[in-house]
Amino acid sequence: MKKIIFLTVLIFSINNFAQNKISTMKILPYPQNMKVEKGFLKIDEGFTAQINFNKNTKLIKAANRFLMELEKRTGIFLEYPLVNEFPDSVKPAMVIDVKRIGKVKLNENESYSLTITNEKVLLKAETDIGAIRGLATLIQLLQVNEQSYCFPNIEINDSPRFPWRGLMIDVCRHFMPINVIKRNLDGMTAAKMNVFHWHLSEDQGFRIECKTFPKLHELGSRGDYYTQEQVKDIINYAADRGIRVIPEFDIPGHATSWLVAYPELASAPGPYEVDKYYGIKNPTINPTIEKTYEFFDKFFAEMSKLFPDEYIHIGGDENNGKQWNANPEIQKFMKSNNIKDNHELQAYFNRRILGILTKYNKKMIGWDEILHKDIPNNIVIQSWRGKKALVKAAKNGYQGILSNGYYIDLMQPTEYHYLNDPVIENANLTKEEEKRILGGEATMWTEWVTQENMDSRIWPRTAAIAERLWSPANVKDVDDMFSRLDKFSLLLEDYGLTHISYQEKMLRRLVNGRNTQPLKTLVDVVEPLQEYKRAGDARKNGKEFSQFTPFTRVVDAANVDSKIVLTFNKLVDKYVLDKDPNTLKSIKNYLSIWAENHNKLLPIIKKSPILLEVEPLSKDLSTLAELSLKGLSGNVIKSNDEKYLIELEQIANKSKNSYGQVELVVVDAIEKLFGISENK
Amino acid sequence: MKKIIFLTVLIFSINNFAQNKISTMKILPYPQNMKVEKGFLKIDEGFTAQINFNKNTKLIKAANRFLMELEKRTGIFLEYPLVNEFPDSVKPAMVIDVKRIGKVKLNENESYSLTITNEKVLLKAETDIGAIRGLATLIQLLQVNEQSYCFPNIEINDSPRFPWRGLMIDVCRHFMPINVIKRNLDGMTAAKMNVFHWHLSEDQGFRIECKTFPKLHELGSRGDYYTQEQVKDIINYAADRGIRVIPEFDIPGHATSWLVAYPELASAPGPYEVDKYYGIKNPTINPTIEKTYEFFDKFFAEMSKLFPDEYIHIGGDENNGKQWNANPEIQKFMKSNNIKDNHELQAYFNRRILGILTKYNKKMIGWDEILHKDIPNNIVIQSWRGKKALVKAAKNGYQGILSNGYYIDLMQPTEYHYLNDPVIENANLTKEEEKRILGGEATMWTEWVTQENMDSRIWPRTAAIAERLWSPANVKDVDDMFSRLDKFSLLLEDYGLTHISYQEKMLRRLVNGRNTQPLKTLVDVVEPLQEYKRAGDARKNGKEFSQFTPFTRVVDAANVDSKIVLTFNKLVDKYVLDKDPNTLKSIKNYLSIWAENHNKLLPIIKKSPILLEVEPLSKDLSTLAELSLKGLSGNVIKSNDEKYLIELEQIANKSKNSYGQVELVVVDAIEKLFGISENK
Repeated sequence: MKKIIFLTVLIFSINNFAQNKISTMKILPYPQNMKVEKGFLKIDEGFTAQINFNKNTKLIKAANRFLMELEKRTGIFLEYPLVNEFPDSVKPAMVIDVKRIGKVKLNENESYSLTITNEKVLLKAETDIGAIRGLATLIQLLQVNEQSYCFPNIEINDSPRFPWRGLMIDVCRHFMPINVIKRNLDGMTAAKMNVFHWHLSEDQGFRIECKTFPKLHELGSRGDYYTQEQVKDIINYAADRGIRVIPEFDIPGHATSWLVAYPELASAPGPYEVDKYYGIKNPTINPTIEKTYEFFDKFFAEMSKLFPDEYIHIGGDENNGKQWNANPEIQKFMKSNNIKDNHELQAYFNRRILGILTKYNKKMIGWDEILHKDIPNNIVIQSWRGKKALVKAAKNGYQGILSNGYYIDLMQPTEYHYLNDPVIENANLTKEEEKRILGGEATMWTEWVTQENMDSRIWPRTAAIAERLWSPANVKDVDDMFSRLDKFSLLLEDYGLTHISYQEKMLRRLVNGRNTQPLKTLVDVVEPLQEYKRAGDARKNGKEFSQFTPFTRVVDAANVDSKIVLTFNKLVDKYVLDKDPNTLKSIKNYLSIWAENHNKLLPIIKKSPILLEVEPLSKDLSTLAELSLKGLSGNVIKSNDEKYLIELEQIANKSKNSYGQVELVVVDAIEKLFGISENK
Repeated sequence: MKKIIFLTVLIFSINNFAQNKISTMKILPYPQNMKVEKGFLKIDEGFTAQINFNKNTKLIKAANRFLMELEKRTGIFLEYPLVNEFPDSVKPAMVIDVKRIGKVKLNENESYSLTITNEKVLLKAETDIGAIRGLATLIQLLQVNEQSYCFPNIEINDSPRFPWRGLMIDVCRHFMPINVIKRNLDGMTAAKMNVFHWHLSEDQGFRIECKTFPKLHELGSRGDYYTQEQVKDIINYAADRGIRVIPEFDIPGHATSWLVAYPELASAPGPYEVDKYYGIKNPTINPTIEKTYEFFDKFFAEMSKLFPDEYIHIGGDENNGKQWNANPEIQKFMKSNNIKDNHELQAYFNRRILGILTKYNKKMIGWDEILHKDIPNNIVIQSWRGKKALVKAAKNGYQGILSNGYYIDLMQPTEYHYLNDPVIENANLTKEEEKRILGGEATMWTEWVTQENMDSRIWPRTAAIAERLWSPANVKDVDDMFSRLDKFSLLLEDYGLTHISYQEKMLRRLVNGRNTQPLKTLVDVVEPLQEYKRAGDARKNGKEFSQFTPFTRVVDAANVDSKIVLTFNKLVDKYVLDKDPNTLKSIKNYLSIWAENHNKLLPIIKKSPILLEVEPLSKDLSTLAELSLKGLSGNVIKSNDEKYLIELEQIANKSKNSYGQVELVVVDAIEKLFGISENK
């Protein structure tokens, strides 16, 4: 009963919110301030742009990209040149007015205002970066009125809530080619994100050309690394979009690939081999020898020049200390320097590295573990452990960004990430302390992800995180977010991302030339096991994932928050409340499709052994759906039929087993439909 | 009547051929010699490879790629390392035995033999390149038997018919990023092609970094060019797959982009601007000044070092001579050097360029126009004009390759390209002369093609051309080719090509978030206008294509030889012969879908103005289908109802109008169904 009341309230507040605050325009991230007026600006061949700022290449390029995108979507042959500098004789349809060239730097002004009348678009901003954020909004305003493309009359004033809105990509566990990075930078631009955190070194690979120590990439990468020319290309590409690039060189742990080339820097004798398996490994940099600091001095001298951002990420996570404990020289060093434990030894190491970075005018950022009272507080803490750690850091004067709750590799629901605010409500931070929470970063770890499906692990969920970091804190209506995310997701594919199209491609391979539909029906109602369960589940079947195992199975084609599941869950929620027969009809439609699916999929499974692992799951789905239909026959839920309900509950419980690291995600809704969950 | 007899004979011969010669294995290009035995080699975790040749990196990489692909398709976690050098203690499932490292060079040995028993795979070849060709066959042999992946017991001996099997890509009209080139090189590898012809300079762009004359790429490319590091990357990538890379620098015509940077080399005073429109342009290199040859001497000195292949392509096509005619200095030069006409002047130019290339140990290849009695016959002619030109060249001692009939940009049917043999049957060439016909090249000109849909213009049709150039001349059964091409096409998407998946992506954009199915139904029965009709048709509507116009319309999403059309045509052919009621039922199913489609598509068109241009076409399809159904009602074709047939013929004729540069391609079959075509 409490449940029902709660649901009613929730739905009321959603509608209220939807009608009054949001959804008049499907923009994501939602702007701070928006006023929609009547009327439209029609887009025709003459729709070109003028820019007030001479020789602002970044902005000219961005305006050209915008207009080319407009052409792509409308099919209109716009007049050339698309972009002019004003004053110009041609009356422009779009005027971009900026005050100065922005720096691609923390805390740069990214605000903009957008005024659209029947006459023209006026985009004003302090910096060109602000204007680029405005263009990301404008393309989402494209509409159709009276069979013409148009922009609505509107007034938007917008600026970000947090100055640090990042995406980390781990290119070490699985290498990601330049074009994959670029299209994700495009996605970030659309979502108004501004930090690309490039995780470049790991136990499983050293991924960047190093001219001072070429053995690093030659021996540490298995041939997959970025040349410095490519790195510069990415930095420029990102800068053109107002995105900072922060390299991460993970030390002293997660360091196997460095030690393949330079075993003399290790805390235990080599030789070392690039690891292909995952987890927390022993190989660790030796912080007690001067050679280490001579090496990193030269290394960071080179990398500081290559990467223009003021921050360099030194990782610092998950050092298990085993090599340090086992090395008598290191133990001796600790004793004679009065270093109590490994955490203090790592702080010593970090201080030395900080000295080097400071020498090269760089600031340090690292994971939680680098936080230590002996480290000065001009560093930034990236918290994978939790918001409390962030609050503690802020109270101690450290700036921080949140990643806990933004681990998009863990296949958790969009809603979970979306509602994860970097600021804890009752943290009792002063204004000044709160300002130290700079924002957050979604983290794309790639143990189980390849370039074929990485986009689908990042998008569209990361756009929900981007909204959390850009939009006002009170923009948190989940339904409304989804309705805008759906549209935004299509836009992302337009920019070359493959998070939608990858799936059909993978399904086609899985069914080996047969009809993909029955498999699609199954995949639509399953999700990969969340968090780290996938590894354990595979291990039970004697399989250990590595860089060289296949990631082309059903679990790799499956995703989180399929539209089918979201819709079905909503139908059930609704029906439980209002018993609307039309809703029931829709529910039964889904159940019928699922009930019949196993018979359709089975012959395909028999000809595609890669699918054998999900055969029981497919059967469970059909059995459960068939039994559910039986219960719903005659439009009556037999909630009073004890025997039936017990059978259903058994089947439902059985259907919760995972196979091939995926699980059915409509079981809970079916239980709710029959009130089974409340019987427990 | 003649028609019917012809059809019967054709169908008989197809079946005969299919049963006796082909189709026991769906391999493309079809091997020279193959013997299938009973039995299978099961693939399990222990399926690894051994190579007899120490340090043959090319082969080790290829074997690793093969086994990773095998993992992707089977989901099997193969044991690591995947590839060993033998002798090795582990009993291998696959042995690769080659005699020597092949040269990536014209006429290198590419033959291989493949023997699969219940025990193992033995792949033997003279060169590693031959072994790579064998791996391209082996992956196509993957089968399923008793719910396990396996290879059939088989014996294949294979070698190419022609030594030059190329694909040209024009990266000037529309720039193609490195990853697009790489995935097409993967497609070429799968189709056993061995020449990538890189069309690098044009009126519309100069696409390669030139260190000697950096203004070439700086001013001639609008920012889209390949760095030399990228060029080397592509050359290495291609070489790893036994593919030669031949750069084309198109001179003296098609030369606008050179002259933007160096107007002093032009035959008329500048300044010049990179062209964005297409066609035959006036700007031409001045062949009468020494500065020209000093320039090209330095230019080719640099490019000869960069590109390792012994051939450099100098273009030479479509010089309209207007600038030469108008320049008194050039006319004076011609007179005083006794040069009769522009063709001779170009031959003079080519001789001078040939001298430069020879100095740098390069051979010359060019389009038809470079053929001239004064040019020595160690050059290669690429014929866009026709096979007769090729025969003439061969008789005069010139080597040549065919591209006429392989212009894949012209959206012609697969069958047309497939049956286009480089050797004319009654050409009366001697053995020696015939050997001068080295093969052919598919040419992907990109005036109307972007990176978004280029794969779909190249593949799978180019694979049919690849078979023409690899397989014995008598392998020419079109139905059988299609049945193998379908499977091969899926394999290509596996290698990262997007010729299938691009379409849904484009349709999604076109319907702007609505259901794509009704548009897909329409697109499945239309084709882009063939040859150069597209430009003229657009011009009638006041549109001129350029590099900056949108290529995201229905015509860009449409393709040639849709499965639906091929199937429908076959059904009609069959029904006309045998009047089988089941066939009629299938025909009516299609017609019903089409009859209902306009009502489904219309509301989508109304919300997507980019679709308005095909509204009449959609209506025509439904009207024609509806009327056809009426004629077929009661299972009787009312061939005796004159009034009905006249109406149908009128509608059919109306349905032949193109809209938005696409046309319906099921009208002919419908006419055939009612015997209208014969009434004409």
